[in-house]
Amino acid sequence: MASLEIIVHASSGRYAVTIGAGVRKKLPEIVGALSPQRVAVVADQALAESHLPTVASLVPGEVHTVTFPGGEGHKNLASVARLLEFLAERNFTRSDLVVALGGGITGDVAGFTAATYLRGIRVIQMPTTFLSAIDSSVGGKTGVNLPQGKNLCGAFWQPSAVLCDVDFLQTLPRRILLDGVAEAVKCGMIRDEALFELLEKPDALETSLEEVIARCVALKADVVAGDEFDRGDRALLNFGHTIGHAVEKCTDFTISHGQAVAIGMVRMTQIAEAQGWCAPGCAERLCAVLRHYELPTEVPGDWQALLATMAHDKKRSGDTLTIVTPERIGHCVRRTIALSEWGRL
Amino acid sequence: MASLEIIVHASSGRYAVTIGAGVRKKLPEIVGALSPQRVAVVADQALAESHLPTVASLVPGEVHTVTFPGGEGHKNLASVARLLEFLAERNFTRSDLVVALGGGITGDVAGFTAATYLRGIRVIQMPTTFLSAIDSSVGGKTGVNLPQGKNLCGAFWQPSAVLCDVDFLQTLPRRILLDGVAEAVKCGMIRDEALFELLEKPDALETSLEEVIARCVALKADVVAGDEFDRGDRALLNFGHTIGHAVEKCTDFTISHGQAVAIGMVRMTQIAEAQGWCAPGCAERLCAVLRHYELPTEVPGDWQALLATMAHDKKRSGDTLTIVTPERIGHCVRRTIALSEWGRL
Repeated sequence: MASLEIIVHASSGRYAVTIGAGVRKKLPEIVGALSPQRVAVVADQALAESHLPTVASLVPGEVHTVTFPGGEGHKNLASVARLLEFLAERNFTRSDLVVALGGGITGDVAGFTAATYLRGIRVIQMPTTFLSAIDSSVGGKTGVNLPQGKNLCGAFWQPSAVLCDVDFLQTLPRRILLDGVAEAVKCGMIRDEALFELLEKPDALETSLEEVIARCVALKADVVAGDEFDRGDRALLNFGHTIGHAVEKCTDFTISHGQAVAIGMVRMTQIAEAQGWCAPGCAERLCAVLRHYELPTEVPGDWQALLATMAHDKKRSGDTLTIVTPERIGHCVRRTIALSEWGRL
Repeated sequence: MASLEIIVHASSGRYAVTIGAGVRKKLPEIVGALSPQRVAVVADQALAESHLPTVASLVPGEVHTVTFPGGEGHKNLASVARLLEFLAERNFTRSDLVVALGGGITGDVAGFTAATYLRGIRVIQMPTTFLSAIDSSVGGKTGVNLPQGKNLCGAFWQPSAVLCDVDFLQTLPRRILLDGVAEAVKCGMIRDEALFELLEKPDALETSLEEVIARCVALKADVVAGDEFDRGDRALLNFGHTIGHAVEKCTDFTISHGQAVAIGMVRMTQIAEAQGWCAPGCAERLCAVLRHYELPTEVPGDWQALLATMAHDKKRSGDTLTIVTPERIGHCVRRTIALSEWGRL
């Protein structure tokens, strides 16, 4: 079985991200090397009849499976509490292991559970969506929502391994797959022109899915190694997200995250071009690749209302705003600007 | 104002533990150096009318106060969730600050809240009990109970500073103060014969409280610097606790933690002497100092029942048990023994 491997260097140690069709079969070896006494495989209920039994059957030794209701509404402390109690009831110790099988929400909820059970036990991330494969499964950010907002409670907790079996991704609805492509385009924009060019090829997802994922993971790994705790360059990964989050909020989350990020990247690139921060033509090229993946490129509704939402959200960080803008395809920078200036862009 | 200062070296950075009468007055300077926009002072309800307003009035700038019901029964995720929401509602950011004012439970609950809010914001620990001053406020262990057991959920999260005003300790009931002395005696037994000798003086608490606290903190700081994440020598701090926990459990927690640790230390020292692991006479000297502080030294009830409880609790770590035994006053070692051997000691 062919597979690609990226090594992530974190302060807690190094770990491998393995990407390929059928790499789930490496699970016995990876778990064996970690030598836990017990393993809990945590999955979204939607995977209860499909991937969950497949993966559980690959775990050597004592294995427990547990599901929780999927969806953003269950990404909360109550779900974490139930998983913690599941582990405690089964006498899990510090040398035991959690496997997080699913998309970003599962990775977040199971990852935060692992981060806090006995002040931290090991976790293997097994992403089953394109978005979690290229983004949330790598880098150690875990967390849940509070009633006041998304991801307000969490921990930095690096996995012991990430195993991305692209066979799992093939079963995704095309709509979900394309939504994730927005983040892959973002990776190309930030720092990898070759990835951007790869995505410009009409059949990239069919012929080069592993390479697209591996290039995104390699970028994430580099950014994490340089700024694990998100005090500096890790913010580059937020390209398109400042506007994107406001779009999600202003449309009452009827626009998906990937669509919102697509819109945010285009608008930010247009602003950068208008300000002379970015080489001309980038926004056009960005729009073309996003359209190919059926992603929107126009701000819906009123731009002024969006600006107001952003200003409100960003009050938390004081009077300035850090934005990420492209200088060209494959290179973005951070810029700190006054909130008052932002309103005039 | 005279004060003692101990520096703790942790992987996340170094911080100072300042001990003395009136050191709360250093709070404006310490908070000022951290330059948060907002500060939340978290305290046990019992301090709402006394220490809480005193401390809040010393915080420069925007300050919010919040209390939660004290007691082990409220050291849980529900209390943490309420505190997280308190911070989120007031738009606390990553650059803001929590002050944990109270005993061990407050330090644990507020510390874990700080550890997880936005994946970690800064916290100053201000212990108001002798036990939290010498033990839990230093070292970064935070956590809460699950229905299945104590401290099963938590995080390692070092404070930015620890400020121990012994004025606060003077208002403690004598019973609570003496309970904490068991842990100070433990510190003397583990590694500081001079501390043990200081505690043998009848008026140590009246004349040398700061020095007793500082010596305990210095020991804790050294152990933490060598084993922050509790994989090795930090276990020395558990001297007396293996038996102590079983005593607490077998007496339905009618015996306090300090009393249980006193009993556990004596029994473990007697075992060590009988096995030839420890110089003779240590148990007698230990008993004398504990009796001086009105702490018990005899195992209540049935030793065999206690052994069974311990064996059951320790199943989690497999077939062996790591115990901490003295070799002499001021020097303890870790020993790994088979569960079967333990039963015959």
